[in-house]
Amino acid sequence: MEGRFVAMPTYSLTVSYNGAPFSGFARQPGLSTVQGSLEEALELVFRRPIETTCAGRTDAGVHARGQVVSFDVDRSELRGRSGESLRKSLDGLTDDAIGIRSFDERPDGFSARFDAVSREYRYLICTQPTAPLFLNDFCWHLPRPLDLDAMRQAAGHLVGEHDFKSFCLAASAEGKPTCRNVMRLDIDEVEVLGEHAVRTTVVGNAFLHSMIRTIMGTLVAVGRGQRHPDWVLEVLQARDRGAAGQNAPAQGLVFWHVAY
Amino acid sequence: MEGRFVAMPTYSLTVSYNGAPFSGFARQPGLSTVQGSLEEALELVFRRPIETTCAGRTDAGVHARGQVVSFDVDRSELRGRSGESLRKSLDGLTDDAIGIRSFDERPDGFSARFDAVSREYRYLICTQPTAPLFLNDFCWHLPRPLDLDAMRQAAGHLVGEHDFKSFCLAASAEGKPTCRNVMRLDIDEVEVLGEHAVRTTVVGNAFLHSMIRTIMGTLVAVGRGQRHPDWVLEVLQARDRGAAGQNAPAQGLVFWHVAY
Repeated sequence: MEGRFVAMPTYSLTVSYNGAPFSGFARQPGLSTVQGSLEEALELVFRRPIETTCAGRTDAGVHARGQVVSFDVDRSELRGRSGESLRKSLDGLTDDAIGIRSFDERPDGFSARFDAVSREYRYLICTQPTAPLFLNDFCWHLPRPLDLDAMRQAAGHLVGEHDFKSFCLAASAEGKPTCRNVMRLDIDEVEVLGEHAVRTTVVGNAFLHSMIRTIMGTLVAVGRGQRHPDWVLEVLQARDRGAAGQNAPAQGLVFWHVAY
Repeated sequence: MEGRFVAMPTYSLTVSYNGAPFSGFARQPGLSTVQGSLEEALELVFRRPIETTCAGRTDAGVHARGQVVSFDVDRSELRGRSGESLRKSLDGLTDDAIGIRSFDERPDGFSARFDAVSREYRYLICTQPTAPLFLNDFCWHLPRPLDLDAMRQAAGHLVGEHDFKSFCLAASAEGKPTCRNVMRLDIDEVEVLGEHAVRTTVVGNAFLHSMIRTIMGTLVAVGRGQRHPDWVLEVLQARDRGAAGQNAPAQGLVFWHVAY
């Protein structure tokens, strides 16, 4: 084997970020992106351009607590530095809104994207009358009550293997497989520093573009009493983005964890 | 009785705010302040200038969850509107970083400042290596471990009635009484949306200027092992601001609650 097929050790970063200042994860020329900031920092540390693969390309404004990013470098390029030392350097070199939580060695050929077994996202909604103090930048503020039982009933229809074409940004769904497996969709209430929030936890094998935000907008239509929980079955059957609810705001969404 | 001595009903607002955009609570000409924004909104609603009294004048950058602000208006000036209706109007008219949580009628002559029985403040410290995602704007980020048992031992010396002159901004202490009663000073660990924080809860009858931030800086010097817990006794005895620890950053402090 030679050229690009020489087996190179693979490393990964676990990354958190506040999505507000970025035009999303994926590098785009002339825009501030998470991938752009990470790859700039990696290039400074490893003294050559480094290509990265992420577990999930989050949209503009979406936050992450446990995004995973993999890349290949030769062991000699580490110049004897520990993972913790490299983590610290990268943490210092990336944008302030990005935190590098760990630098880990992975099996050769590991891909943050293709080796992921499941991905977990969390979405926060605050229903209190006034804007929440601590969660303002991390929630959808909907100052009216939601029927959580109805939302849970609707959520139950979405768990399992389904064609989620109705929950995918239309332009992204054309000609591509749109079946996904939602393993968990839980809705509970949490108290965060004295503020009350409705937390939705979604675990799935993978997600379509905008899928979770469309699920949230759809569940909220049910929670507000605008739709019956069984309406969600019709939405699934329609295989048409126009059938589902609105796209919930990006700032309520956090890419929480990836399992390998 | 006549003129300003006619008994007028007293009302109060319970107010939360993010301290970051303000030059503190107290109105200052030409600066953006919480009191300035509140009094502007009250003037629009009641069609005349309204003077307010607060439970505690927080410094620039300090947040509040339960600040209380009292003012006198004649019942006829409410024009039959409910407290909830007035709350909503004021919430809409004040700065976006201010939330009006309630509008309440109080006994005649009530003062948010003088009738307060106790005041509760909370202070958050995050000790994780990377900047916290959710708490970044609401904590002191100290990326090294703290000895909480030592801090608790030091805190124990501060509970009770003491002369806290060493814990007061020097210029504010001159010629004024500096005895205060600290009823509670608890340090515990909390998990906030997956992030770990050290929370200090301080309850006292009243506080001197910068007192809580100086207490926090002093406790952190103990928690880092730079000082023995009993050093705090020397600091108390010195009656000199120079004897205490640094002033902890404003953004970790929240004025939490006032009891009447």
